[in-house]
Amino acid sequence: MKFLLLNGPNLNMLGTREPEKYGTITLEYIEKNLKEVAKQNNVELFCYQSNHEGDLIDKIQASNGNFDGIIFNAGGYTHTSVALRDAIASVNTPVVEIHMTNIHAREEFRHNSLISPVCIGQICGFGENSYKLGFYALLEYLKNNN
Amino acid sequence: MKFLLLNGPNLNMLGTREPEKYGTITLEYIEKNLKEVAKQNNVELFCYQSNHEGDLIDKIQASNGNFDGIIFNAGGYTHTSVALRDAIASVNTPVVEIHMTNIHAREEFRHNSLISPVCIGQICGFGENSYKLGFYALLEYLKNNN
Amino acid sequence: MKFLLLNGPNLNMLGTREPEKYGTITLEYIEKNLKEVAKQNNVELFCYQSNHEGDLIDKIQASNGNFDGIIFNAGGYTHTSVALRDAIASVNTPVVEIHMTNIHAREEFRHNSLISPVCIGQICGFGENSYKLGFYALLEYLKNNN
Amino acid sequence: MKFLLLNGPNLNMLGTREPEKYGTITLEYIEKNLKEVAKQNNVELFCYQSNHEGDLIDKIQASNGNFDGIIFNAGGYTHTSVALRDAIASVNTPVVEIHMTNIHAREEFRHNSLISPVCIGQICGFGENSYKLGFYALLEYLKNNN
Amino acid sequence: MKFLLLNGPNLNMLGTREPEKYGTITLEYIEKNLKEVAKQNNVELFCYQSNHEGDLIDKIQASNGNFDGIIFNAGGYTHTSVALRDAIASVNTPVVEIHMTNIHAREEFRHNSLISPVCIGQICGFGENSYKLGFYALLEYLKNNN
Amino acid sequence: MKFLLLNGPNLNMLGTREPEKYGTITLEYIEKNLKEVAKQNNVELFCYQSNHEGDLIDKIQASNGNFDGIIFNAGGYTHTSVALRDAIASVNTPVVEIHMTNIHAREEFRHNSLISPVCIGQICGFGENSYKLGFYALLEYLKNNN
Amino acid sequence: MKFLLLNGPNLNMLGTREPEKYGTITLEYIEKNLKEVAKQNNVELFCYQSNHEGDLIDKIQASNGNFDGIIFNAGGYTHTSVALRDAIASVNTPVVEIHMTNIHAREEFRHNSLISPVCIGQICGFGENSYKLGFYALLEYLKNNN
Amino acid sequence: MKFLLLNGPNLNMLGTREPEKYGTITLEYIEKNLKEVAKQNNVELFCYQSNHEGDLIDKIQASNGNFDGIIFNAGGYTHTSVALRDAIASVNTPVVEIHMTNIHAREEFRHNSLISPVCIGQICGFGENSYKLGFYALLEYLKNNN
Amino acid sequence: MKFLLLNGPNLNMLGTREPEKYGTITLEYIEKNLKEVAKQNNVELFCYQSNHEGDLIDKIQASNGNFDGIIFNAGGYTHTSVALRDAIASVNTPVVEIHMTNIHAREEFRHNSLISPVCIGQICGFGENSYKLGFYALLEYLKNNN
Amino acid sequence: MKFLLLNGPNLNMLGTREPEKYGTITLEYIEKNLKEVAKQNNVELFCYQSNHEGDLIDKIQASNGNFDGIIFNAGGYTHTSVALRDAIASVNTPVVEIHMTNIHAREEFRHNSLISPVCIGQICGFGENSYKLGFYALLEYLKNNN
Amino acid sequence: MKFLLLNGPNLNMLGTREPEKYGTITLEYIEKNLKEVAKQNNVELFCYQSNHEGDLIDKIQASNGNFDGIIFNAGGYTHTSVALRDAIASVNTPVVEIHMTNIHAREEFRHNSLISPVCIGQICGFGENSYKLGFYALLEYLKNNN
Amino acid sequence: MKFLLLNGPNLNMLGTREPEKYGTITLEYIEKNLKEVAKQNNVELFCYQSNHEGDLIDKIQASNGNFDGIIFNAGGYTHTSVALRDAIASVNTPVVEIHMTNIHAREEFRHNSLISPVCIGQICGFGENSYKLGFYALLEYLKNNN
Repeated sequence: MKFLLLNGPNLNMLGTREPEKYGTITLEYIEKNLKEVAKQNNVELFCYQSNHEGDLIDKIQASNGNFDGIIFNAGGYTHTSVALRDAIASVNTPVVEIHMTNIHAREEFRHNSLISPVCIGQICGFGENSYKLGFYALLEYLKNNN
Repeated sequence: MKFLLLNGPNLNMLGTREPEKYGTITLEYIEKNLKEVAKQNNVELFCYQSNHEGDLIDKIQASNGNFDGIIFNAGGYTHTSVALRDAIASVNTPVVEIHMTNIHAREEFRHNSLISPVCIGQICGFGENSYKLGFYALLEYLKNNN
Repeated sequence: MKFLLLNGPNLNMLGTREPEKYGTITLEYIEKNLKEVAKQNNVELFCYQSNHEGDLIDKIQASNGNFDGIIFNAGGYTHTSVALRDAIASVNTPVVEIHMTNIHAREEFRHNSLISPVCIGQICGFGENSYKLGFYALLEYLKNNN
Repeated sequence: MKFLLLNGPNLNMLGTREPEKYGTITLEYIEKNLKEVAKQNNVELFCYQSNHEGDLIDKIQASNGNFDGIIFNAGGYTHTSVALRDAIASVNTPVVEIHMTNIHAREEFRHNSLISPVCIGQICGFGENSYKLGFYALLEYLKNNN
Repeated sequence: MKFLLLNGPNLNMLGTREPEKYGTITLEYIEKNLKEVAKQNNVELFCYQSNHEGDLIDKIQASNGNFDGIIFNAGGYTHTSVALRDAIASVNTPVVEIHMTNIHAREEFRHNSLISPVCIGQICGFGENSYKLGFYALLEYLKNNN
Repeated sequence: MKFLLLNGPNLNMLGTREPEKYGTITLEYIEKNLKEVAKQNNVELFCYQSNHEGDLIDKIQASNGNFDGIIFNAGGYTHTSVALRDAIASVNTPVVEIHMTNIHAREEFRHNSLISPVCIGQICGFGENSYKLGFYALLEYLKNNN
Repeated sequence: MKFLLLNGPNLNMLGTREPEKYGTITLEYIEKNLKEVAKQNNVELFCYQSNHEGDLIDKIQASNGNFDGIIFNAGGYTHTSVALRDAIASVNTPVVEIHMTNIHAREEFRHNSLISPVCIGQICGFGENSYKLGFYALLEYLKNNN
Repeated sequence: MKFLLLNGPNLNMLGTREPEKYGTITLEYIEKNLKEVAKQNNVELFCYQSNHEGDLIDKIQASNGNFDGIIFNAGGYTHTSVALRDAIASVNTPVVEIHMTNIHAREEFRHNSLISPVCIGQICGFGENSYKLGFYALLEYLKNNN
Repeated sequence: MKFLLLNGPNLNMLGTREPEKYGTITLEYIEKNLKEVAKQNNVELFCYQSNHEGDLIDKIQASNGNFDGIIFNAGGYTHTSVALRDAIASVNTPVVEIHMTNIHAREEFRHNSLISPVCIGQICGFGENSYKLGFYALLEYLKNNN
Repeated sequence: MKFLLLNGPNLNMLGTREPEKYGTITLEYIEKNLKEVAKQNNVELFCYQSNHEGDLIDKIQASNGNFDGIIFNAGGYTHTSVALRDAIASVNTPVVEIHMTNIHAREEFRHNSLISPVCIGQICGFGENSYKLGFYALLEYLKNNN
Repeated sequence: MKFLLLNGPNLNMLGTREPEKYGTITLEYIEKNLKEVAKQNNVELFCYQSNHEGDLIDKIQASNGNFDGIIFNAGGYTHTSVALRDAIASVNTPVVEIHMTNIHAREEFRHNSLISPVCIGQICGFGENSYKLGFYALLEYLKNNN
Repeated sequence: MKFLLLNGPNLNMLGTREPEKYGTITLEYIEKNLKEVAKQNNVELFCYQSNHEGDLIDKIQASNGNFDGIIFNAGGYTHTSVALRDAIASVNTPVVEIHMTNIHAREEFRHNSLISPVCIGQICGFGENSYKLGFYALLEYLKNNN
């Protein structure tokens, strides 16, 4: 099985970005850790991060038929991008939505996710562990739905 | 370690309740499965379900000092209960909020969770697996914060 | 056939409660009258009133397979209870929603009923007669749908 | 006693109109049935349907002193007509508001009725039977208030 | 000069309609009185009342070139009719909006007038006298703008 | 094939009505032009205009089985008429919604069309040409769906 | 009889203030004209203008028992002052609300008048003539209510 | 005289509950202190706390004729319970609403109290002293209204 | 200790102002009574009333260092004045907000207090007694916080 | 004449993307067909699609002076991009807005188009044919405005 | 050239007022500094501060023809005063709106400025330096527009 | 010191873009002028413009440690980009937000800036001069905070 870990805007800044909210672990570290978890579960994990909405759309479209599922942290685009929502709806690849912080406990404008209605489910608030939980959520989903 | 699995209104109806949304697995089955997972992780899991808002508040208050954490599916009270929110805020027990369905993909009035801001994080949309993910989220949280 | 007449909070106060709105007839009197109407139509009528949201949910759940239908005056919970709505949705028992007063002619917050979308229909504004009309609405519904 | 059955826009299309919502019974059939019910209760029933808001207002005004009550299905004008509301308020004839479908379970814009606050009560969701229930509601109301 | 006095829905019910709000004077009386005032000011006054939105639109359109101005009490259509607004905007005839009651002191939905932005001005709250004030407002307007 | 061109309130005023928005062409001219276009495409075009909401509803109802489709400019009723929406939903005749002006570039209250959800599609902003585009849209739709 | 003409903020700037909206007539001119009208009707007219909300409140309070009525143009305070509303409600002096411009045809925030519900009625949109109409409205009101 | 001190959800947690907001005094201590104050004023004070909405409703209903007044801190139910509001309205016992924290200075959803319109008045923000002030407010009210 | 009793707009009208809401006691009487209460508690009470927002701001600013606390009834400015809020925030003097009527039981626009978030607490609904309760609330607050 | 056909995000997925909404025709096919239509009308048609908001802005800017008009399907950016709106406003090239689906019949967030107010008009709901209608709308517009 | 520096409510409290937001510099110091800056640019600077809305309106009106421009910090009136907005609109004097704090980063009710639409521009968030930037903004504006 | 001048979408169109709003000066000219101003103040100014949200995010991230501050005109992204807001929050570089037009005097959707709460302050409405004022605001800020 092949999974895509897709990270949106500013997640490349993890480690230096608002550490009181996001912690001090870097994205590289998270990706390395998750790749190991993937390996132990016989999953090939590909990682991609971009600050560009268009790039993220391109990647989601390209996942169609090439990946079994996507673990997606859409960052700030979560709350503003109809285009990303449409991209997910346009492919058959199942998507798990994750966030490091508990978006429902932050500013009002972060409570609403435009992509939620086209994702399997949402995991938020567990820091680095959100990624691992997202991985397992996707794996289990695929076991039950294939 | 001791965890409390707390289920709110109508979750005792799992299996017969709107199976196209909630599946056909019963709450007993979910509790049995999660107890096994707990056992494998050296956690004692206690399970409680009630349709009564007051009972759920009583249980949360009683968890203070007696449980290391709570996995909480508040059902319909998620969207209407300030009292449950205050109960969680009144104890030191960390709480993970879970839902079987993706509440953000359902009716507008289910998008908002009054208890989110006082929980560690939220997991929703993964059916029975939401419970397991909630268990692991809580376990990992306690490892990192104790 | 067996019907359940379910009355929510403060309806036990009928007779003394805001008589200019609810009249001076007691709930006992209403129940007695409706039981007679039921008897004439070969229906066994069971009556239950509670001020506790959880009790009402318990009763609705317990109706599954035991009652042919419910005549339900949810009182103040009509406007605030997602849990009651979910309870109704979790059973196969058809529910007729009734109110003694015309809730659409009162305060803004009474115009919206959270349980309406999971009930067959709504009858409101006819005082004691709302109960009888609810009885006949349920009876007719069952004749046409069984 | 003389009652007026007043039907608003598109109710003349019953039978062919969205049968999955409104059933396959025609308005003629409903009127015939209700006239029989009326006869059995010693009530003379007059029936009128119009797609014209102004016609409906004219009829309501003309009912003053000529009818003992009105059973009114205002159709789409229910949600948009202040003028119909004012017409009802301008006469002494009591009006029972009915709808075949459960308007509270449909689109948001159908939840609000502008005429409710000037009607005795509302009955909705029981298909053809809404008319009969409306008849009995009016009859009982007149017995108690005359 | 020729003026049109245009009255909308339910104003033909004046005298019997909610007398505590509208008084006991009939529309005929108002029209007779205003015709006298008009005569004293060398104005020919034509009076028309209809409960039909379409009729009122027809009359406004027909006023173009035939009347010097309109005194318009649109009744309940004031708050709901974009079509009447467009009718006024489609002609060169100046229109004075009047109401017998103070619409800003009544229900919320009566505070907004859809036709106000295409009328010269609004006079409301002075009972029968609103008509006379409307007459003088139009007369003065025409003196200053012709 | 037989098409109905249905024009709502104030479109009979084209030519004199707010020419800076609607141009100086009359409705007669538009109807004549469109009839020629229809003839060239072997379509019989019937034209009807009314300022009366009820008339428009009557016409839509009467189109059932008699017309292959309707090109409909509902004018001001576009934004306020649930009854027209229900009329369209009550027939099998496909309806194309058109507007001469770009309603989305005008006042806020013109942005929303109550009839859009029951029409095939919407064309607005192209003046007289909106009618021709509406004609071709309907023609093509019928070719593909018959 | 004694009337008070009360003008609020910026009305002392009439003549130079946004003449395309308010015209070029000064407040002095308006006051002089209205005093003549008053004289002809055997009314003593006192005039006061202030930019200070507190002064206007003082004057309204002082009118109690000293004036038969007030013609009041509250200017910008119309839309923001609960204190002025309370002042009017605290005295027995009847108040006619006037505006030179048609406030319902201007910016959204000018559509609502906080003082309307405690005034007899509102006259707006007739420029200088609004004052005269306000005078006559008050005079007639006093005739009918004394 | 007999007063009832009624405390809602989570107030039994005072002392340990969010001490930075509620202080470190326990409910037992508050009740003991208030009983002494009562005694000094010849008032018998009964104290009851529950986390159950239904229990609180039961107690309010039972107060009818048995208590001269209620000092009520409804906790989180303040903002969500129509049923409690109806309970208060259904009895003749006067109720003083109190809160330890200044609810108007906290989260938006705590600003609105559903029970305020059926209580004599509201006291909030004075910590333990809110209870004493509530006691005196009730005492004084009864002196002036009996 | 020195307290300032600050009364805002229209409270000088007490006694004659809407007596069904505010009673028939004058402000002078209230001030006299409260001065006696103050004296008994060894507090010097200064009283000031103004209808001018600016005057109230001046007084609050001047209280800094000169008064131990303020009992403030801001009247109609409660709901509209950011400037008064900022004035309170700009001084160290603690302020208790009081109202004679229960503002939460009156018009919607009176439910929100702009000054609440910068006051210790709010007391409303107890008529003259609101002032005494405010006095004791302030006295107790100062005892506990000095 | 030279036209630009500009397609926004996810329109390159046509054929596989939600075929129940968008049909099974590919973008290549649509572009080929439209080029033929263009050729027949002596118009040179250039086609461009991008998932990147910035690319679309670049293209619109570059159209200035190089294209006679743009047929623009902005996809998901329609509802969220002020920057695209500003881009259209910054050039002289007329733009026709098109959508394959009837956006007014879909989710609430698709009803509003941020670019509408700076486009000539909008065509939506006709599938592939929306493109052809857009072409003819633009062609006719240019004939009438050059 | 003559400039007016106008400061609204509570700005006389600078230095002691919420120093964590406004710093410790006094208004006198700011005025002295700005007068020097003015002198260096051959501008005569007059300074005025008032807590009274009416005084600020008076000053703005009096500026007409006497000052070349105004640097205006309206304090709390920024968000509530239509009267100040009208005062600015009633004069020819250009006004630059300034704030020491970044009002868009504070409470929701401070985000909206009622006076912005009638000022040249807005500068906020730079503490004392907001005044200097306002001075230079006005100076440059006058150079370019005279 | 090194400053970055960052310009968002459509600002490269200055000179030709809506000149009645933005003037006729080109971005090149603005950049050249500002570089001179920078030079006179011993600041190295780097200029970058992009229509791509992702590019702007990349630049802001890259500024961390490389620039002392940013002068940022985010154009249309100001009102829609949470991602840009997060980018600014993720770096230590202080950012001054500027706009050439007075965004608070334009369309409603331009009044809100998503990036304001993470910028030092906002300057808008002064055309080209907004850039210079932004430069000085940043310079002064750095002097006071370093």
